Amino acid sequence: MNQIHRVAIVGGNHGNELTGIYLVKKFQQYPHLIHRASFETLPLLGNPQAIAARTRYIDTDLNRCFNESTFTEQQPANYEEFRAQEIQKILQPKDQEFVDAIIDLHTTTANMGLSIILGNRQPLLLKLAADLSAINPLVKVYIHEQPKGSGFLRSLCDLGFAIEIGAVPQGILNAELFQQTEQLIYAVLDYFEEYNQGKNLPKNHTLTVYKSIGIVDYPRNENGEIQAMIHPQLQFRDYEPLHPGDPIFLTFAGEEILYQGNSIVYPIFINEAAYYEKGIAMHISQKELIEIS
Amino acid sequence: MNQIHRVAIVGGNHGNELTGIYLVKKFQQYPHLIHRASFETLPLLGNPQAIAARTRYIDTDLNRCFNESTFTEQQPANYEEFRAQEIQKILQPKDQEFVDAIIDLHTTTANMGLSIILGNRQPLLLKLAADLSAINPLVKVYIHEQPKGSGFLRSLCDLGFAIEIGAVPQGILNAELFQQTEQLIYAVLDYFEEYNQGKNLPKNHTLTVYKSIGIVDYPRNENGEIQAMIHPQLQFRDYEPLHPGDPIFLTFAGEEILYQGNSIVYPIFINEAAYYEKGIAMHISQKELIEIS
Repeated sequence: MNQIHRVAIVGGNHGNELTGIYLVKKFQQYPHLIHRASFETLPLLGNPQAIAARTRYIDTDLNRCFNESTFTEQQPANYEEFRAQEIQKILQPKDQEFVDAIIDLHTTTANMGLSIILGNRQPLLLKLAADLSAINPLVKVYIHEQPKGSGFLRSLCDLGFAIEIGAVPQGILNAELFQQTEQLIYAVLDYFEEYNQGKNLPKNHTLTVYKSIGIVDYPRNENGEIQAMIHPQLQFRDYEPLHPGDPIFLTFAGEEILYQGNSIVYPIFINEAAYYEKGIAMHISQKELIEIS
Repeated sequence: MNQIHRVAIVGGNHGNELTGIYLVKKFQQYPHLIHRASFETLPLLGNPQAIAARTRYIDTDLNRCFNESTFTEQQPANYEEFRAQEIQKILQPKDQEFVDAIIDLHTTTANMGLSIILGNRQPLLLKLAADLSAINPLVKVYIHEQPKGSGFLRSLCDLGFAIEIGAVPQGILNAELFQQTEQLIYAVLDYFEEYNQGKNLPKNHTLTVYKSIGIVDYPRNENGEIQAMIHPQLQFRDYEPLHPGDPIFLTFAGEEILYQGNSIVYPIFINEAAYYEKGIAMHISQKELIEIS
């Protein structure tokens, strides 16, 4: 099997998601916390200008800029494209090995607990996710498969994934979630360490995942303005079953809008602040039990 | 007694506090909702550029710009000073009566429920607050007396006050809080209507208020960077008693910091996102029972 040589922990890919930012600063100040014998760990702040400005991004969403067309631009069109090029040079330098794994730290205003977001079904990541779920039942696993070139940081390597923590507002720290995220990161590093040592890893032989099947936008008028809010009965109910006919929106006039699908789905990213401008009220997913070999 | 002739309802004084913004848009679309026979009601969006940018402000906090020195500037120094001048002309026009009352709608990431924030002890506002508390036990009253020229919108008239709703993240709508805020506004308008009609108003003869006595900042290093988070035992505990020796912060290294005061206080605005940059981890207040004549 291939050894893991370098692991990056990235916080502040979005500048107003403070949990990852302050965890990375802690790891930079106390590197022994993320030191493991068999690999190098690199803590990195994603978007320093957005962090300083306490905003998600300066010009455009950095976490949609990590793709070949950005990397090969002679003149980056904006700050985030420039920064994506810089990060690529750090994580995939010409004169040494690329990082083997990326842990990309995010927070969400949705009630997603401790979510692991996978962009693919890489077997080692599935085993890792199964292991983390066994350690902590708050861990949920969301598979959001992306086409090549979608620009997510985690797509830079096979062992890239996001940790998405919530519910927490943008611009604040929640101490309890901070500590839970920190422990989850240590569990990931310990797993990689045991993997490198070829130890018999503790295994869960099945894993429940939520597989993305699409998005639902807010009802909008002809100017694109939203006309409804997430229904109170759906708010904070991420990963819970939504049945055909269940209320999903409440218009400003007070009318309920019901879910029109014809099967049970599992909404995720319900009422995420940063997704209003992206045309996303929630992701919807299917629950799936997969075997871990 | 003086009649109330004009009432302003302002949302989006801060551009990322969506509850007030969408309530004002609703009132602009359905003006009958805020129509009362004896006075005119004016719904107004505070900071249109910040609302469009989904941010608290463009250059500086608009809700610190409402003072004489800004109003008399020939050349406003930035967008918010320009906008403060515009709003002053709308609310205090030269050729007609000024607005008599301002309801300034805000949200907070602190768990402040439905808070009424008074900048003074104007007797009619205290009676109104007592009335609202009687109707809805979720209503809390915070008195934050301000020196003249502090620049808050509510300081433009004697009957100016803020409604502060939370906990809700910046940039999202919470339907339940939206509806509670809407009902609270109708109760205020109904109260003013009964006042104008000289009706015997329902009265609470006592009112519990929380009077501001200061602020507490985060522990910071020499560069001004925060070194600790709100302690999990204090998070979401706005308006609850804090005793000497109770934990208030948790450092990133995991050490507890205890409250060093020598009497019970009542923290408010605990972990408000917009106050990190202002050097405020929380306001502290004293609880006070006042007689309503």
